[in-house]
Amino acid sequence: MKCRKCGGRGVINLRQHKLILCKEHYLEWLPEQVQRAIDRYHMFTPQERVLVAVSGGKDSLSLWDILTRLGYHTDGLYIGLGIEGEVHYSDESLRLTEQFAGAHGLHLNTIKVAEEYGLAVPEIAQQTYHGQTKPCSVCGRIKRHIMNRAARDGGYDVLATGHNLDDEAAVLFGNTLNWSAGYLMRQGPVLEADIPGVVRKVKPLCRIYEREMAAYALLRGIEYIYDECPFAVGATSIYYKELLNQLEADHPGAKLNFYLSFLQAKKGGLFTGAADQARQSLHPCPTCGQPTSVEGECAFCRMMGKVKKLTKS
Amino acid sequence: MKCRKCGGRGVINLRQHKLILCKEHYLEWLPEQVQRAIDRYHMFTPQERVLVAVSGGKDSLSLWDILTRLGYHTDGLYIGLGIEGEVHYSDESLRLTEQFAGAHGLHLNTIKVAEEYGLAVPEIAQQTYHGQTKPCSVCGRIKRHIMNRAARDGGYDVLATGHNLDDEAAVLFGNTLNWSAGYLMRQGPVLEADIPGVVRKVKPLCRIYEREMAAYALLRGIEYIYDECPFAVGATSIYYKELLNQLEADHPGAKLNFYLSFLQAKKGGLFTGAADQARQSLHPCPTCGQPTSVEGECAFCRMMGKVKKLTKS
Repeated sequence: MKCRKCGGRGVINLRQHKLILCKEHYLEWLPEQVQRAIDRYHMFTPQERVLVAVSGGKDSLSLWDILTRLGYHTDGLYIGLGIEGEVHYSDESLRLTEQFAGAHGLHLNTIKVAEEYGLAVPEIAQQTYHGQTKPCSVCGRIKRHIMNRAARDGGYDVLATGHNLDDEAAVLFGNTLNWSAGYLMRQGPVLEADIPGVVRKVKPLCRIYEREMAAYALLRGIEYIYDECPFAVGATSIYYKELLNQLEADHPGAKLNFYLSFLQAKKGGLFTGAADQARQSLHPCPTCGQPTSVEGECAFCRMMGKVKKLTKS
Repeated sequence: MKCRKCGGRGVINLRQHKLILCKEHYLEWLPEQVQRAIDRYHMFTPQERVLVAVSGGKDSLSLWDILTRLGYHTDGLYIGLGIEGEVHYSDESLRLTEQFAGAHGLHLNTIKVAEEYGLAVPEIAQQTYHGQTKPCSVCGRIKRHIMNRAARDGGYDVLATGHNLDDEAAVLFGNTLNWSAGYLMRQGPVLEADIPGVVRKVKPLCRIYEREMAAYALLRGIEYIYDECPFAVGATSIYYKELLNQLEADHPGAKLNFYLSFLQAKKGGLFTGAADQARQSLHPCPTCGQPTSVEGECAFCRMMGKVKKLTKS
């Protein structure tokens, strides 16, 4: 197994690209791919201020590393969820994130859910009917709310998250199994800030396989939290990932093709009619000002309102 | 395991419906489900003449049986593909189809590809670049062409095929993995005859699982050809079926939900914009008069033209 660029010892075989690379060329190649995605989907320019959402995992820390290497102006945002588990999940992920920021002289914003809202994520989830069976869904809602608020209040032009191809393909797969029109129309590498109160959201790693990200973190010597979140065990998204991994093993490139042909079809106008309908129904939440498609308060504010009442009584 | 309707001995457990039925009630239940699909999707009325495409397999023979039991005016259409294999596939499937028609006093139209076009399907496939690797695709094109012509020339109002839920879900899955906009927009239980020269096509079994069809044929004592077509071995559609079976085993009802939510989203206007674009580009083939989206002759006529030239030279 020899590197295609220099003939040196290959460390990774990118089957879907029919490409073998050595450590040095792989660490060059991956940021180039990320740069291409940034350009292709018009994510942000070198002049814009980027807030990178970092969890302490391989994807978000590597994203921060790559964007820094590519010369972008980035700060980090760490959201303390207050999740325990065997390794004190949240403590450990904060420690690794701070260690990374310190080593690279980067600025990290930290928001702890428990300090801000009185309860940590697992407690909030426990207080809600929905969260008892689907804590990840409640956690996602809280994170999206805080991320947007932090980016908006901090005056950032754009918020970048570390979703990789496997994440995106699994979400797309789930949305396709249910044909959730709203989610299908919204999913993409860029969520434009075309509604007041919303910051542009981008996913620069959307075309990079999870194993490619793991290899990058390893070869760059980035120390990250290995464990999955203890609440994610048995999550549907993990089930979908496994199914797609099986498809990928039998048909290399299938995952990438699934995601890219979706973006292509969308660009070609597949969902045009429905997209127009959906856009019209968004309005700002009267409490937090973030856009929502439901009547009255947004889902986050309604949820937090209920939780407050319960904890007071 | 007891029948929910009579408490008798259950013979089938319909997990996705949480329903156990005995032989007698199952043989009542299935035609009711088919009748519902016919009504729901406005497939045809009792006054219309239905041509049922029969292959000698469990689905199409059972469909013919069910439509007859439901009181519809049906004739059969058997297309002789000239496929050999271990069991003389085509000979055996014709024998079983004729036997079924004879036993029920039904009229069967038979068209043999070799008699009509000089070559059987495997030979035609061999003569085409595409057919050498994908004979099923060539076979499908030939069958669609002949089915429509036979229905049109015979003055039938509608052509019914035996595609079951597993078939439809697998096709949908394949079209979704590639996000083939054209195919996604066309797929459904009814293909309307809104273009001159085209007969309405319907799939009354589109909501019935393959195992439900197999159980019906077995319990009704319908003798059908068990073997898969020898050319279908290793076909992608079979691979997709297996993947969906795995999903179904882990999440009973997932296959039905995938297909029905697709129809729902489509009805809700998900593909509206793109559908309008696609419709405008259809025109009648100058040779056979059937509609086509490609410039000039349709794919069938082009293929047969090439094959004729090759066999003459």
